[in-house]
Amino acid sequence: MKRGRFISLEGGEGVGKSTNLLFIRELLEQQGIDLLVTREPGGTPLAEKIRQLLLEHTEETLTDQAELLLVFAARAQHIQHVILPALQCGQWVLCDRFIDATYAYQGGGRQLDQHTIAWLENTVLNGLVPDLTLLLDAPVETGLQRAQVRGELDRFELEELAFFQRVRQAYLLRAAQHAERFRIIQACRSLPEVQQQIRVALASLLPKYSE
Amino acid sequence: MKRGRFISLEGGEGVGKSTNLLFIRELLEQQGIDLLVTREPGGTPLAEKIRQLLLEHTEETLTDQAELLLVFAARAQHIQHVILPALQCGQWVLCDRFIDATYAYQGGGRQLDQHTIAWLENTVLNGLVPDLTLLLDAPVETGLQRAQVRGELDRFELEELAFFQRVRQAYLLRAAQHAERFRIIQACRSLPEVQQQIRVALASLLPKYSE
Repeated sequence: MKRGRFISLEGGEGVGKSTNLLFIRELLEQQGIDLLVTREPGGTPLAEKIRQLLLEHTEETLTDQAELLLVFAARAQHIQHVILPALQCGQWVLCDRFIDATYAYQGGGRQLDQHTIAWLENTVLNGLVPDLTLLLDAPVETGLQRAQVRGELDRFELEELAFFQRVRQAYLLRAAQHAERFRIIQACRSLPEVQQQIRVALASLLPKYSE
Repeated sequence: MKRGRFISLEGGEGVGKSTNLLFIRELLEQQGIDLLVTREPGGTPLAEKIRQLLLEHTEETLTDQAELLLVFAARAQHIQHVILPALQCGQWVLCDRFIDATYAYQGGGRQLDQHTIAWLENTVLNGLVPDLTLLLDAPVETGLQRAQVRGELDRFELEELAFFQRVRQAYLLRAAQHAERFRIIQACRSLPEVQQQIRVALASLLPKYSE
């Protein structure tokens, strides 16, 4: 059986990830692709409990190191129980955030050492790489304004502006370092323009696909 | 201010850790030592939530890798928020299981790679080592019989005999490799004899202490 394709969707706060995730899902399903949509941190019942620990506000500060280890613990569950089995069965996987989010949030945002993240990546991912990564990119101020009107903010969304600027820069650096699989989507444009960019980006995985 | 001493208590299932923890606590408090008693995995509200994830039975199997990362995430919280602040304030810390339990359970029991554990140890412990480690050692069969009469078994206690034999062997190997801080307590002897061994072991930290 032919292995499925693995697509990750990445981006900072308020860049329209949810809306565009639905759009990508529809596009792929219209092509008759058997698609699994999942997210990180999370994607399994246990990994969702870990996500809860990562996002909730508590009196006890979560140390940066514990945050990083929790992210990879959730990812280990997600890869072994969800992503790999789906790909091996020929399903395509669309994942709302994956490894690049760790380089962006824990590497860029928290300024944790890149080598530490890379070591954990090698250990936990064991060579698993998305076939395509769509990075929704927008100026930080635009995204934060959108995120702030959505309601109560989680532990990450409460970070300061400089944090999100580092997140954006780290995402763009990853995109430059892994240009073969990254497509940068200008997320501050109008929705039809954003969707057109996404169509073009997905076309590389859909050889028979015509607009 | 003089830094406090750090004592870890280690051992497999049913070796009498709880009883002997109380005995050590009383012994030290009788000497006027300001003592903090804590445990792993756990020791902070957030780390206790991680402990819950590690011990509970769920339909979703916890992968060995996720288990190891959760153990170290909890430990990072525990060290930063509890152990180091206490030691720096001159308090002594008595910890029910610490780093050697990871080599025993995840290294020996789960047969995870020692180098992976050592890398995480270096990253998370950053040189923190117990001043004294008391290893309560008993034949595996004796311990399991004791553990099984205590009531409902957690996710570890349900493992097979060979798992606990590997745990015991890994503990004994750690004790041999770190003989300067380990004291092996023959836990299958009578309680007075076990307590006498503990008194002798603690005497090295209590220069003015006379039996």
